[in-house]
Formats: sequence, C-alpha cells, structure tokens
Amino acid sequence: MHAELLAIGSELTQGHTVNTNAAYLARQLGELGIAVTRQVVVADDRTAIVESLRAALDHSDLVITTGGLGPTFDDLTVEAIADATNRPLATRPEVARAIRTFYRRHRRRLNRLALRQACLPVGALALPNPVGTAPGVWLPLDLPAPRLGVQRAARQAGGALLVALPGVPREMQAIMEDSVLPRLRRRTGRPFIASRTIRTVGLVELQIQAVLRQLSIPAFVQVGLYPHLGAVDVRLTATGTPQQRALRTLNRLERALRRRLGSAVYGLDEQMLEGVVGEALARQHKTLAVAESCTGGLVSDRITNVPGSSRYFLLSVVVYGNRMKETLLGVAPSLLARHGAVSAPVAAAMAQGVRKQAGSAIGLAITGIAGPTGATPNKPVGLVYLALADRRRNAVKRCHFRGDRVAIKYQASQAALDGLRRWVLGLVD
Amino acid sequence: MHAELLAIGSELTQGHTVNTNAAYLARQLGELGIAVTRQVVVADDRTAIVESLRAALDHSDLVITTGGLGPTFDDLTVEAIADATNRPLATRPEVARAIRTFYRRHRRRLNRLALRQACLPVGALALPNPVGTAPGVWLPLDLPAPRLGVQRAARQAGGALLVALPGVPREMQAIMEDSVLPRLRRRTGRPFIASRTIRTVGLVELQIQAVLRQLSIPAFVQVGLYPHLGAVDVRLTATGTPQQRALRTLNRLERALRRRLGSAVYGLDEQMLEGVVGEALARQHKTLAVAESCTGGLVSDRITNVPGSSRYFLLSVVVYGNRMKETLLGVAPSLLARHGAVSAPVAAAMAQGVRKQAGSAIGLAITGIAGPTGATPNKPVGLVYLALADRRRNAVKRCHFRGDRVAIKYQASQAALDGLRRWVLGLVD
Repeated sequence: MHAELLAIGSELTQGHTVNTNAAYLARQLGELGIAVTRQVVVADDRTAIVESLRAALDHSDLVITTGGLGPTFDDLTVEAIADATNRPLATRPEVARAIRTFYRRHRRRLNRLALRQACLPVGALALPNPVGTAPGVWLPLDLPAPRLGVQRAARQAGGALLVALPGVPREMQAIMEDSVLPRLRRRTGRPFIASRTIRTVGLVELQIQAVLRQLSIPAFVQVGLYPHLGAVDVRLTATGTPQQRALRTLNRLERALRRRLGSAVYGLDEQMLEGVVGEALARQHKTLAVAESCTGGLVSDRITNVPGSSRYFLLSVVVYGNRMKETLLGVAPSLLARHGAVSAPVAAAMAQGVRKQAGSAIGLAITGIAGPTGATPNKPVGLVYLALADRRRNAVKRCHFRGDRVAIKYQASQAALDGLRRWVLGLVD
Repeated sequence: MHAELLAIGSELTQGHTVNTNAAYLARQLGELGIAVTRQVVVADDRTAIVESLRAALDHSDLVITTGGLGPTFDDLTVEAIADATNRPLATRPEVARAIRTFYRRHRRRLNRLALRQACLPVGALALPNPVGTAPGVWLPLDLPAPRLGVQRAARQAGGALLVALPGVPREMQAIMEDSVLPRLRRRTGRPFIASRTIRTVGLVELQIQAVLRQLSIPAFVQVGLYPHLGAVDVRLTATGTPQQRALRTLNRLERALRRRLGSAVYGLDEQMLEGVVGEALARQHKTLAVAESCTGGLVSDRITNVPGSSRYFLLSVVVYGNRMKETLLGVAPSLLARHGAVSAPVAAAMAQGVRKQAGSAIGLAITGIAGPTGATPNKPVGLVYLALADRRRNAVKRCHFRGDRVAIKYQASQAALDGLRRWVLGLVD
C-alpha cells in the first residue's frame, strides 16, 4: 500500500509554519507497512487543492490530507474533496450535536460558523475529534468514478481511501490514534516493512559510511544516514522479504554496527538521548543536579521532558553572572578571577557545587559562550566546558561548537547529555 | 515569479526528519516577492527525483531542491538533475580543491568519496559551501529544451532556474544567504508581495475571525489565521498592488486589529514572545529570576534563547522536590504541608523566594502537574499555577492545560511568558 500526504495551508507554503504533521503521519504509516512515497504542500487555494487531490488519488492507494478543516473562511478542504471526488456535501446532525456539546463543555458561546464543520461529503464517515470541533473525514472511494482510468480501477481491488484530518497537531494526532490507525490496521493486515534506526552521537556521516562498507548488507535492506546537530541516525529498512528473515537480518546488522561503532550508539528507533540517560540514572538509583550557564535551562528542559524524571532529577541552577555562581554553587571568587567563568576549573567547581547544594550523586555543569556577543580573543563564541562530578572525582571536557546561539545551545546540551550517559554507564570516550 | 521546493530524502518521506528547510526557504523567497506555490518531498529514489524535477520545472520559474548532495551512496540529486535536464556531468577542479582544503582545515583525512561532490552538471555554477563540503548548484535553464513545451518557453523570457542545496539546515542556509539570495535579488528586481503577521496570545481562532469580519479588507489582501499551542498568528498578505498602497493598507489593518484585539497582540512578524518580554525588561532596566517546577527549565531556555538576555536574566532554579523549594527558595514547610507544592500560596512563595535569592526586580514561578503521573483527585494533570512577584506585590494565576507532558510544559511556558509580559508592560488581562 502506497500513501501520499497532502498538507493544505498558506502558512505552510509561505513558510510561517513547519509541516511537522508529515513526519508524524509517515512514521505511523510506516509502522503499518504503508510506505509514504510523496508529501505535497499546497496553499489555501481551492483549485490547487482539487488538482493536488486528483493527482494524489491517481498515484496512491491512500491519501491523507491535513489542514483546512476549521470553521473559518480559509478552510477549504471539505469543499475541495467534494469537487475532486464528485460528491455533494450534506450536514451531519450527529457532528453538529458534537460541536454544540464541545462548546457547552468548554463554556464558550456557540459561534454559528463552527457548525460549518458539520458539513461533509456524502459517503464520508465523520471521525470524532476528542480535543477540538473539526471532525476528521474517512472517505472510501470504492467504485472507480469516471475520471479514474481503467488501470487504477484494476490496481485498486480494495478501492482508494481518502482521509482528511485537521492541521492542528494535537487534533490530528488524536483522531489518527483514536480512529484512523485502528481502521487502517484492519484494512492492511500484517506489515511487510521492518525497519530499525541505530542512533549515534559524536560521529560524522562519512565515519559511519566507512563502517557500513565493511558489512555485507543484502539487497532487500535499504540504508539511510540521517545527520542531525551532533548526531547521526542509521536507518535500516527491510522490504519485500518474509517477516522472520527481515528481522533476523536487522538483528544481525544491528549487532555488527554496535560492535564497530561502540559507545557512539546510544539507542534504537524512537529512543532519545535524554531518555537513555534517565533510564540509566533510574536503574542505578543515582540522582542528578545540573548547573547551566550558556545552555540556559535547555539541558534541564530536555531531562525533564522524560516522564518520571522526578525520580532522579533533583535540581538545576541556571546562572549567567558570577555572583550567583559564588553564592548558590560555592565557586571560589579567586577561581573566577583567575580563570574566568568559561574555564575548566570553574566548570568543575560548578559541577561539584551544584551536587553538594542538591545532595545528589552526580553534578553536571555547562559553561560557555553561546554568542553572538561575549567572546574574547582567547575565548571564541562556541567555546564550551562540560564538567561532571561525583563524590570521588571530576571530569572536564572542552568543546567548540559552530552556528548561531540556538545551535550552540543545542550542541552543548547534546554533548552534556552524551557525557553524562558515558559517565553513568562507565563508557570510555 | 513562482517557485516550487523539492526536498529529497527518505528520512523525510519516512518521517524520521521534519522538513524545516521548506519553511525557511519559503520565508526567504517571500521577502523577495517570489511566491512558493508548492512544496514536494520525495524519497532517495532516482526515478522519483527525476519525475518530480521535471514536473516542478514544467510548473515553476524557480525550483529549489534540498538534500541528496552529500558524498554517500544515497545522495542522488546531482545525477537526477543531469537526467532531468539532459546535461552531462563533469568534475570541477575548483570544487575538488575546496573539498581538499576543507578536510585539511578540519584536520580530517580526506575520504576519496568526498570528491564525488565535485562532479556537477555542465552549465551549472558551483556555489561555495562555507560550513561543509557539498557545494550548492545554480543551473539556469535558459533555452527551452525539447521537452519544454511552447507555452512554457513563451512564459519564461528569463528562463527557468534550478538551484540545488544540501539538506543539512546550517549548510543550506549558509549557501542561501551567501550566494542564492544575492543572485535572486538581482534577477527579480523589486518585490511585489508585502505581508505582515500580527501575533496574538491567549485568544482562539474564532474570536479573531469575529474581529476580522468587522474590518473592511480589500480584495488584494489575503488573510490567514495560524493557530499554535496557546497562540494565533494573523497573516495579512498584499499582492498585485503598488508597494505604497499595499503598505498603507497593511498599516491601517494592523492599527485596526491592535485596537480591537488589545493586549492579546504581543508582536509582529518574526517577533517572539520571549524576545518581546526581554526587550521590555531591558528597556525598564528590570532583572528577572525564575523558579520552575513543572516546566523543568523550558521557561529559562526560551528566555535565554534571546541574544543579550544576560542583561536581565539573573537566575533560574529548577526544582521538583519540596526540600529544594524550602532550602533554595525559602518556601515555608508549613505552606507545602497545608496546600501542597501545586497551589497558589506555594507558587507565590516560590516567586518571592527566587526573587530574593537572586536580588532581582521580578520573580516568576511555575508549579504544576505535567503528567502523565502525579495527579490527585483534586489536582489533575495539566493544572498549573503561575506566580509573579516584585518588592510590593504578588499575582497568581491558575491554568489548566491539555495534552501530553511536552505540550503541557510548552503551554505553561507560553502562559508564564505572557503573564510576565503583561506584568512588565502594565497590561490588564
């Protein structure tokens, strides 16, 4: 089964919003063995939407649209679906009732325009929206309509399927999880794609490619390398082979990569660095305190994105100035005067200081120059010291990152979390 | 001038990476008056790339591709461009030299595969990559090749233009800013699109639409409403009208919206809530300290994303447990025992406590239940108290957010920054 994603919205074509929905949908469909072959974004323009819908329905078994389902004047998706599939629109009393209930429950006066969202193409199923008013649309196009050629009709024994979802990610995801995925699971049967992502940190693409060239990779496995800021994912996808053989091969390749890439591999698939670090801390019953200067709270934010992080995360102190480094973290004024706030001795003192302040097993500190200002001839923008401390020892690492303020903050947070992972797991750099 | 963006990469079609490049490119082109009519994403599949390139060149004056320019086996863009435009490939000695220099400068051994990136279609200009090895490609397709019909040749006096950029955002943006935008500016002359985004916080879409219906909006202005978590942007775009008239109309509409939406308008265009808050603090020479519980550092992270935030941001203390709230923020144990950590009195005490600890003018505190665990019958997931304090007064607000842990953290940070903005600017809720 091949799917195409069609995102509708001028905020997307003009670049004011990033189309994060496509990535979510592609991942969810991938798990069902449905390959997304194409993603298209068009503006809130009825003709453009109708044309893109027709093209997508001609090429794919499943078309999922996002956006343009709201109550306002620039929401044109339902009308465009009616045009593209030659189906009239009709008001659904049950959807209108749900919209009235939603307004009552949220103690808002009903805006009559909201009831526009109860109008759906004939033959469509309304998918309840648990967090908003716009229902999703499930429209099986079973019989080949005149505009669909013979070729397509022959290919499509089960009929093409058109699904329309709201553009607001929370609403789209809720309808997807509650209504669309269960229905798709029933239609597709068992998946025929197996994939695995080996997630690495601290290596560059070509280093990983050099390792991949030493492995024997069968033709039914596709390999993709996906670089991020400070990390590279290796994605292995097995298609068109029996499930068992696919999994056996992926297991073998994963083992081979782990052997060759060593401690650079921090996790698999959806695992995140902060989650891996958190698991290790929780498993070892170790607690953590963080002192952040240049990362400004980002390291703590990432650590606390993990549900249950309150088990090991005790405290973070985010300080820019020297005075707070002295009073809250106990960094000696002489150390600050001699070496400056961005230095290895101060990083180590911050890590020990925050550890003692919180009474935690481990202290992590980050101090550096995120820019654009604050650099000196000896201390350029992007210079960052990372320090780790426990009761017995300290470790400090000097890094130099490139990019703008936000990129430097992120790379520093990445290196800090990776350093913490290696420290807790006892891995050698 | 109409543009189409073609992003190439299986990591995108499979949803493992979000296509943020498209939004960046669309915004940059919009400022030159080049409208992006369509964005397409295809996998690392040579046939699919060639087909999409041909379709894009048939519909648009400018096609910009991102991705697939790297040195590895799954980088197919240059070959696909050669196919789609019937041009042979040739190695450019000057690009090969630049790659060798890059490796030397970064003290890495030259991987011979990297030199693959010196191979470009004949007639293309190599655009230097200041932060990586893959050059951008600038390929003017001046003469209508046989496959381009008469209609297109007539429409295209200046010839279509194909630009290929790397997929890594830093590299893509560097080449865009150094080489592509200056060249495009020379080609396009003056822009004919003017647009303005009125950014609001705390209102829902339909409330804003009700206000828009009271305004007289000329036909040459398109209006778009773009809801985010806890915020809605109103985008006004004037096209096909003289620059002066367009700007006059946008100014009038902006004034009318500000009058009717009042303090919900926090900024314009690319302004961010944290930037607006920071400007107000800096202008008033007021300093800030933050105590975060459920937001886990996110509020501080957002505040410190603003360059120059060290002028007003003194301290953030991120604490989950009660003990740290007592020792570092001076919250009375009796208050915690009587009301619990998630309560109005504790929020107020945290705000006063962190203010005193830092010696700042203002204290901001956030305490709540981000979930998924930690709820009690009286205190559900999503319950958040926000508190502000200065030397003379406290203010506490109770909020209830919906969504997962990360969504609740974000909405709480949004409400905290908005509360801070209103407090500093003396705005009534």
